[in-house]
Amino acid sequence: MTRSWWGWGNVENAVTGDERAALTKRIGTLMPSADLTVHEPPEVSDLDLPDPRVTPPQALADLCSADRTDRAAHAHGKAFRDVVRNLLGEVRNPPDLVVHPRTEADVVDVLDWATKANIAVIPFGGGSSVVGGIEPRFDGPAVSLDLGKLDQVLEIDRTSRAARIQAGVLGPALEDQLREHDLTLRHFPQSFEFSSLGGWLATRAGGHFATLYTHIDDLVESMRVVTPSGISESRRLPGSGAGPSPDRMFLGSEGTLGVITQAWMRLQDRPKWRANASVHFDDYAAAVNCTRAIAQSGLYPTNCRLLDPVEAFINAGTSSAGGVLVLAFESADHPVDAWLARALELCRDHSGAVQEQTKASENWRSSFLRMPYQRDALATQSMIAETFETACTWNRFDELKAAVTAAANDAMRTVGVTGVVTCRFTHVYPDGPAPYFGIYAAGRWGATLSQWDDIKVAVSEALANAGGTITHHHAVGRDHRPWYDRQRPDPFAAALRAAKSALDPAGILNPGVLL
Amino acid sequence: MTRSWWGWGNVENAVTGDERAALTKRIGTLMPSADLTVHEPPEVSDLDLPDPRVTPPQALADLCSADRTDRAAHAHGKAFRDVVRNLLGEVRNPPDLVVHPRTEADVVDVLDWATKANIAVIPFGGGSSVVGGIEPRFDGPAVSLDLGKLDQVLEIDRTSRAARIQAGVLGPALEDQLREHDLTLRHFPQSFEFSSLGGWLATRAGGHFATLYTHIDDLVESMRVVTPSGISESRRLPGSGAGPSPDRMFLGSEGTLGVITQAWMRLQDRPKWRANASVHFDDYAAAVNCTRAIAQSGLYPTNCRLLDPVEAFINAGTSSAGGVLVLAFESADHPVDAWLARALELCRDHSGAVQEQTKASENWRSSFLRMPYQRDALATQSMIAETFETACTWNRFDELKAAVTAAANDAMRTVGVTGVVTCRFTHVYPDGPAPYFGIYAAGRWGATLSQWDDIKVAVSEALANAGGTITHHHAVGRDHRPWYDRQRPDPFAAALRAAKSALDPAGILNPGVLL
Repeated sequence: MTRSWWGWGNVENAVTGDERAALTKRIGTLMPSADLTVHEPPEVSDLDLPDPRVTPPQALADLCSADRTDRAAHAHGKAFRDVVRNLLGEVRNPPDLVVHPRTEADVVDVLDWATKANIAVIPFGGGSSVVGGIEPRFDGPAVSLDLGKLDQVLEIDRTSRAARIQAGVLGPALEDQLREHDLTLRHFPQSFEFSSLGGWLATRAGGHFATLYTHIDDLVESMRVVTPSGISESRRLPGSGAGPSPDRMFLGSEGTLGVITQAWMRLQDRPKWRANASVHFDDYAAAVNCTRAIAQSGLYPTNCRLLDPVEAFINAGTSSAGGVLVLAFESADHPVDAWLARALELCRDHSGAVQEQTKASENWRSSFLRMPYQRDALATQSMIAETFETACTWNRFDELKAAVTAAANDAMRTVGVTGVVTCRFTHVYPDGPAPYFGIYAAGRWGATLSQWDDIKVAVSEALANAGGTITHHHAVGRDHRPWYDRQRPDPFAAALRAAKSALDPAGILNPGVLL
Repeated sequence: MTRSWWGWGNVENAVTGDERAALTKRIGTLMPSADLTVHEPPEVSDLDLPDPRVTPPQALADLCSADRTDRAAHAHGKAFRDVVRNLLGEVRNPPDLVVHPRTEADVVDVLDWATKANIAVIPFGGGSSVVGGIEPRFDGPAVSLDLGKLDQVLEIDRTSRAARIQAGVLGPALEDQLREHDLTLRHFPQSFEFSSLGGWLATRAGGHFATLYTHIDDLVESMRVVTPSGISESRRLPGSGAGPSPDRMFLGSEGTLGVITQAWMRLQDRPKWRANASVHFDDYAAAVNCTRAIAQSGLYPTNCRLLDPVEAFINAGTSSAGGVLVLAFESADHPVDAWLARALELCRDHSGAVQEQTKASENWRSSFLRMPYQRDALATQSMIAETFETACTWNRFDELKAAVTAAANDAMRTVGVTGVVTCRFTHVYPDGPAPYFGIYAAGRWGATLSQWDDIKVAVSEALANAGGTITHHHAVGRDHRPWYDRQRPDPFAAALRAAKSALDPAGILNPGVLL
């Protein structure tokens, strides 16, 4: 398999042939006036990449790559705006070098060198950032620190159901190593195949579980982080009340405070029992109330994904006036029928039509895995296809959804495109949902980047004004800074800045992110 | 009711008469050579309190009290060593003044004054610290900032099941205000009656739920904190991935970074269904394995408290060779019989004898509520009676328990006392338990403080060496500093110190705690 330098995943898995034709036909039906001509990506050899401005010291030379494809592939993340810039050949700020440490000691050495030479270091896991988190969007030299070779499960504690794991491991390689021990992390973000443990930790990734263990944060027992001021390693503990949590400072630090090299992670037994259903609603307000009742019931479903009617139609091929709730329970310990039965009772109380045959659920799942590839295909056909996400308390959700949808539609009108807005809940909490929006619009080749950027500003303003967070699990990166800066309390910003100065006095770590 | 200046709770609820006689008899049976003469506490008028060294500015004079009883009652927390010092009349460092702000603006004004005048400020909630957290254990002037007048539930969001609550409210007053709305926080630490929301947040208190929502941390939606550098208020969110969590920096900050004045808290519906049982074991190792299986089952019992044989005997009046597991499930949404049934199946698999008649459980509960009062009674009778707690991963528990018990017994021998060590789990996690130890020993009047201090050093060393945390939910305060300083990663300490300097440049907030 060959990793795509410009788009999602592996070249061999890209959308082609029948899948492309079906996609084109579906979009053509929805948006008959769309120009869906396919624009092929440039070759790396066609890119106008600036030459590296730095030379590594002899001792580190073996770890450093100035290869053009390597540098191009580390220049952007995998957001729609990244893919479009790649398609247009706009790779203006690639890292000067890509560094591939083989050991934690290598990481220490790289930070020492970079601190002395004043070179920015951008920690790189799987490269799947969708928020400009791994992009040298600044002047001055930068290296991309690719942790991909730190990919081993080092130790298993079967009794406590935990493992010590190197941070550079990608999802599938991690699960392969755990499977031998009948264990699993069960952290399955959409980026699972091409994102790393360290990346999940640094960005507070959201995973498989719709309730309870929603963020990777809750699955961390201890972390080991290389900072320019020394290595920070927390004690393995199931819980503690000894001062503010050290791990919680590094969780979400997005490569600005240190480089996560290892973590002890809490694992799960592999589930043996499953029960699921999909529930159709005639009325979206009833569907939301029902989802809230389930979120507040203490039943803790593994999946509890409310698709609004547009999302259900576009991504699950299901027609429904009020949306579809995809529900699932799983357990390694006991049958979960009693759990599902009570959840479905709640659904019926809220006028939901239960289908124990979960066709919508299966459709949605296969669609979920193909989405990033299809997004790339759409991007080559002048489509704007991107998602954004938030979380808010239940009392604010109706207003937030209405405001975001209106802002998106207004912005699409203003930039002259026709499109749709979809919404699903990726995670739900007793006090609120995490709504995840999609925008699919027919853009104009060469203009889709600026068209999307305008839409993104509009929806970000809308969700911030409606009391949502600028990100529930995609992270802040560089793209979310304006809204993050407003959301973050000023005294906390001052404290974080001070912490950063203490740990990274030269300010080399991922400049422009968070601070 | 009159609050005791020297001991736990209300004077009217202190142990007297029959309860004292029964207690004395029970101890006398266990430890026939103990001298259980009762030593009455001194009167406040007998205390040799130094005069206040500071005078408040006119604008704050109304809020400030130099009353001797007020100052004495704010001089120490409620640990055994605090009570003993009070009994001996050793109140050497009372706060110069006790300040009773009526509004958040008052808190701002007090911090402004203290910053300019270089006076230490010790935030005081219910005063129930058992780790020296509220004691001016330093030279130089200090005021105790008693938030007791900030005791209102300000706003309820029934839809999101959350409330905005002033930080000074004590447990019962809080629950009274929530009961009108059929809601509850369900945070019931042993100190419930005499501890405050702000105190719980500042110390990461452990509460009612044995699994899942073990610490108050998980019940916080947003916090408002007055720092000398401004007010920090986080956005109300059910979840977020926008950078490191601001709330997690203040949770556990123990009054060193700011004064928590309000929080939006996640609430629960009042439970309607309950199911419980107690399970007796012949073998403690089997009991531990069983508890681990339940902790890893995904059943999430509300109570899952394994009493070791000594704890079961002393505090639940139950004889058992391998300990007693007290199990309970509760729900506001559904009957929990299926949950309990599966848990009991696991118990039988581990050779537990199930008693659905939960006499042990009831005995233990009433004993739980009286324990602090009985501890005070024992302290007046030269007994050493104190607890300490930790958490560790399951793989380390056997060794940790053995090491702590041996260290306690050795230390008791060394200081020349006879006593017992008990252990229960207060909370359990999939990856480890939170063991809570008790020590009951017959000391020598006038020497019990130094005897206990020696024992405390020994057990703290043992649990730190065995990989436990120095505290799971009692906090760090001043008493746990040596072990906390070793447990905390150095780079994190540097970051925390820098954050403290940014928020509290004059270093007035609770000096000596954490940093």
